Amino acid sequence: MAPFTYRLRVYIEDTDLGGIVYYVNYLKFMERARTELLRELGFEQTKLRSAGVIFVVHSLDSRYLKPAQLDDELNVETVIEQASAATLAFRQNVARLDGTLLCSACVKVATVAADSLKPTRTPRPLVEALAPYLPSNN
Amino acid sequence: MAPFTYRLRVYIEDTDLGGIVYYVNYLKFMERARTELLRELGFEQTKLRSAGVIFVVHSLDSRYLKPAQLDDELNVETVIEQASAATLAFRQNVARLDGTLLCSACVKVATVAADSLKPTRTPRPLVEALAPYLPSNN
Amino acid sequence: MAPFTYRLRVYIEDTDLGGIVYYVNYLKFMERARTELLRELGFEQTKLRSAGVIFVVHSLDSRYLKPAQLDDELNVETVIEQASAATLAFRQNVARLDGTLLCSACVKVATVAADSLKPTRTPRPLVEALAPYLPSNN
Amino acid sequence: MAPFTYRLRVYIEDTDLGGIVYYVNYLKFMERARTELLRELGFEQTKLRSAGVIFVVHSLDSRYLKPAQLDDELNVETVIEQASAATLAFRQNVARLDGTLLCSACVKVATVAADSLKPTRTPRPLVEALAPYLPSNN
Repeated sequence: MAPFTYRLRVYIEDTDLGGIVYYVNYLKFMERARTELLRELGFEQTKLRSAGVIFVVHSLDSRYLKPAQLDDELNVETVIEQASAATLAFRQNVARLDGTLLCSACVKVATVAADSLKPTRTPRPLVEALAPYLPSNN
Repeated sequence: MAPFTYRLRVYIEDTDLGGIVYYVNYLKFMERARTELLRELGFEQTKLRSAGVIFVVHSLDSRYLKPAQLDDELNVETVIEQASAATLAFRQNVARLDGTLLCSACVKVATVAADSLKPTRTPRPLVEALAPYLPSNN
Repeated sequence: MAPFTYRLRVYIEDTDLGGIVYYVNYLKFMERARTELLRELGFEQTKLRSAGVIFVVHSLDSRYLKPAQLDDELNVETVIEQASAATLAFRQNVARLDGTLLCSACVKVATVAADSLKPTRTPRPLVEALAPYLPSNN
Repeated sequence: MAPFTYRLRVYIEDTDLGGIVYYVNYLKFMERARTELLRELGFEQTKLRSAGVIFVVHSLDSRYLKPAQLDDELNVETVIEQASAATLAFRQNVARLDGTLLCSACVKVATVAADSLKPTRTPRPLVEALAPYLPSNN
């Protein structure tokens, strides 16, 4: 299973006074990658919302290894560690183009109904579409 | 007419790789000040929204004079330059506590209906409450 | 041991299209709280930096329970779970004023030398000053 | 003179509780576009910095016409309105792919020495490289 790769560039808005990417912003990079993964599979968030389903982040853990800097190009590589009835766990790695790992996180996302915000089942077609990014033994 | 003063602290999230406050963030500081001015007058944005009225920024111009840095305390001083039927023009100055001016902007805000997003009259009680922050000849 | 409490207000800049606080921004709230805790103890980050010591976030895990909304006032309560030679682990809870817990995170911070960015010992006076926020058996 | 076009996508991080792009964030989009324009001409900001020259935003004015939404693709079109010894004035328009103008701004940037932060002449090779984006009568 190959991860889904999303590439981005570091801009001044992403940096802090340390001269490096502000650690909070890696989580934005990872969300962009999840959004693009869903879009590639045909599940734009706007469409999901109008179909009554939204994603909310349930929890995350993040580990910072090396810093990114202005003008760097980065890859965010995403796989799905676990898919259960109403949650998806994404493993996301942010790396330099030479493969140096900068930040790794697991982001757990819950599917909720757009109106009630109550947990709801992840739509079947989405689960099926995500299969290629799931561990092979799932 | 004394301006409305809102005080804030500069945190790491506000800085960029230049070691100073990222210029875009002064506009956030100014919006916090406008929000607190309205709150002091009894017009919380949440209440205005549920009363069907929201503010949208129509235009702004901003001039940057000196930079703010981490740990600085800043004052945002706000007066209303102009109040017409459906727009308010705020003059907002961000300064150090010793009075050194860092950034000055004029932010024009339009009142629109929350449902249609069409221009609507600024609620009369709000216009009256804002009087102390208006130029005396208005 | 009483936690250190930092109070903040939610502004439009903090929200996202879901009408609630964008989950990434709780991490900014928590950093403001850590900064104010250090300041109260006499360790402004600016001073620490000029003394050659900076903090870098090593890792964090965060759990989201309920959302905050525009105009909410929130408390960030901070204790120190663990203090070792060169790292500090902060437990931080963001709650509404009525005590409802919204977000809880553990943020592990490493002390590094400002010039080399290599791990260095947390300054002794700082460790001593932090004692009131440490578990009693430390 | 054709403008320089930079394309971007709107993500959740860019939106606010109004369900649209938070007005402050258009200024970030415009800075990304200026950065990419400079990069295309061979003047990465990192290189300029190490050559002792940085840009600081002197002033800006911005006009908001229509809102952008999640999942929108936008073009930022940039031309240079004026280039004098130590300042550059960029005109930047953010539009939907069908050409609908959403936001237009003029951003004045000053060239300063990286060490003293004093105004300095814009490097000659950069001025020459920018010629294609200048009004023809300059």
